[in-house]
Amino acid sequence: MTTLPSAEHRRDLPPAEARALFRAGLRTPTAGWCRGWTQANLIAVPSDLAYDMLLFAQRNPKACPLLDVGDVGSVSTSLMSGDLRTDVPAYRVFEDGELVDEPDDVRDVWREDLVAFLIGCSFTFEAALLDAGVPVRHIEQDVNVPMFRTSVPTRPAGRLGGPLVVSMRPVRARDVAAAVRVTARYPAVHGAPVHVGDPEAIGISHPDRPDYGDPVEIRADEVPVFWGCGVTPQAAVVASRPPFAIGHAPGHMVLTDARDSDYLVP
Amino acid sequence: MTTLPSAEHRRDLPPAEARALFRAGLRTPTAGWCRGWTQANLIAVPSDLAYDMLLFAQRNPKACPLLDVGDVGSVSTSLMSGDLRTDVPAYRVFEDGELVDEPDDVRDVWREDLVAFLIGCSFTFEAALLDAGVPVRHIEQDVNVPMFRTSVPTRPAGRLGGPLVVSMRPVRARDVAAAVRVTARYPAVHGAPVHVGDPEAIGISHPDRPDYGDPVEIRADEVPVFWGCGVTPQAAVVASRPPFAIGHAPGHMVLTDARDSDYLVP
Repeated sequence: MTTLPSAEHRRDLPPAEARALFRAGLRTPTAGWCRGWTQANLIAVPSDLAYDMLLFAQRNPKACPLLDVGDVGSVSTSLMSGDLRTDVPAYRVFEDGELVDEPDDVRDVWREDLVAFLIGCSFTFEAALLDAGVPVRHIEQDVNVPMFRTSVPTRPAGRLGGPLVVSMRPVRARDVAAAVRVTARYPAVHGAPVHVGDPEAIGISHPDRPDYGDPVEIRADEVPVFWGCGVTPQAAVVASRPPFAIGHAPGHMVLTDARDSDYLVP
Repeated sequence: MTTLPSAEHRRDLPPAEARALFRAGLRTPTAGWCRGWTQANLIAVPSDLAYDMLLFAQRNPKACPLLDVGDVGSVSTSLMSGDLRTDVPAYRVFEDGELVDEPDDVRDVWREDLVAFLIGCSFTFEAALLDAGVPVRHIEQDVNVPMFRTSVPTRPAGRLGGPLVVSMRPVRARDVAAAVRVTARYPAVHGAPVHVGDPEAIGISHPDRPDYGDPVEIRADEVPVFWGCGVTPQAAVVASRPPFAIGHAPGHMVLTDARDSDYLVP
C-alpha cells in the first residue's frame, strides 16, 4: 500500500503516475486527481452481453456516454497506455447481479470473453466548474462524490435495464446557471444536469445518505444538482442479474491519457 | 406515382405528409423537404451483424451519429410514426455487398432478424446554414447532394470496415467559418466538416463526378467543404460483404418527427 499524496500533488500528477500508484495498491476515490485529464467509468461484460450493453449505452447517452469499447478479451483501451485489470484504484466484481468482491486488481478473475466499456465521468468537468468559480463540495471536503439510485428508469436494451444513477453536487442558487452552461459543453462526460432541485421528485428521500460514495454538506443557500452517472450500468447489472460483470468501484475511476479539452464542444 | 410538389410546398410540408407521398410511390431526394425536421439515414442488418454495426457507429461518430437503434425485427422507430419498409422514398438492397435492387418499398425483402439503425443526416443542418446566410448549392440547383467515397479509412469494427463517405457543399471563402460554426452545433447530424478544401488530399480526383447523388457547380470564389455522411455504413457493407443489408438510396432520407432543434447543442 502506497501513501496518499497531498491534495496539491495529486491534482498536478500526470495520469500515468497516478495509475502507477493505483497499480501499486493505492485505493482512493479520484475526484480532484490529475486536473485537466479525462476520467472514465469501467464496465466489462461477457461478449454475449456486449450488444445489450452497447445498445443500453446508446439508448441512455446522458448516463452512459461511451468513450471507448474494447475488442473481445482486450485488457487495454485506446484512451490510456495501462492495463485495465490493474490500473484502477478499486473494482467491483458481480456474479448474477450480486457484488461478490471489491479487489484492487482483477487479473485473477478477468475472462477471455470480456468486452470493456469506458464511459465518461463527471469528475472530468469539475476542473471547468472550479475555473468558472463554482465550488465542488466533495473536493473541498476531500471525500468521494455522493451518488444515488433514482426512481427514474433507464431505457432498457435487451436483457439490461434498471434505474438511472446520478451524482449530486450542491450549488449556490446564483451559480446554478453557470454550472449548467459549463457542464453542457462536456456531453461526453455526462453534460448538463438531468435534474436541478427537489430530490424527492426523482426518488431521493435522503440526500444525506447516498447509495454510493460519501455524503456532503448541502448549505441553506444551495440547490442539489444532479448529473447522469456512469455507475448506471452497474445498477443495470444489479437489476438485470447477468452471470458476470466487472466494474470500477464508484468514484474510483480510470485515469486516461485523454485531455478534458478533447471532449469540449464549441 | 404521385407528382412532385413545388419546392415551396415541400419545404413547408409536415413530415407525416411527406412520408405519405413516399409511401404512395414518390421517389425523390429529400434535401429541402420539411424544413425544421430531422432527416435520417437507414441501415438495416441481420441481428448477428448488429453488434459490429453498433460498434462501427460508436467508433466512427462523425460519419455515423446514431439517432436510434430498433429492436430485432421491428419496422418502426421512436423517431417517427411510420413504417421503415415503406416510408422512405427509395431503398438499396445488398446481398454479399452487391447492390441487387433499388426498390421504393422493401416489405417483400424485409427479414424478421433485421435490426434498423437510424443515423443523422446533414440535410438536417441545411436550414440553419440558410438561416445563417450560407447558400446551399444543391438546394438552389434542385438536385441531390454530391457524395464521395474518400481515401480516408474508417475505424473498423468486427467484420465491418471501409472508406469514409462525405457529402460536399461549395462554400464561399468568406462563409466557411460560418458554415463550420453553424454545423458544429449539430453533432448528431454530422456536426462540423471533416475536411475543408483540397479534394485530392482525401482521394477525390473529380469533384464534378460524385460517387452518389448529383454533381453541383463549384464557383471560382468557393471552397469545397466536406462533411461526414451516413452513407458510410453502406460503403462498409460494399467493402465488407455481409450476406444481407438494406439501406436508403443516398439522398432519399427517412423524414422523422424529431425537430432539428432537438439535436442542437448549446
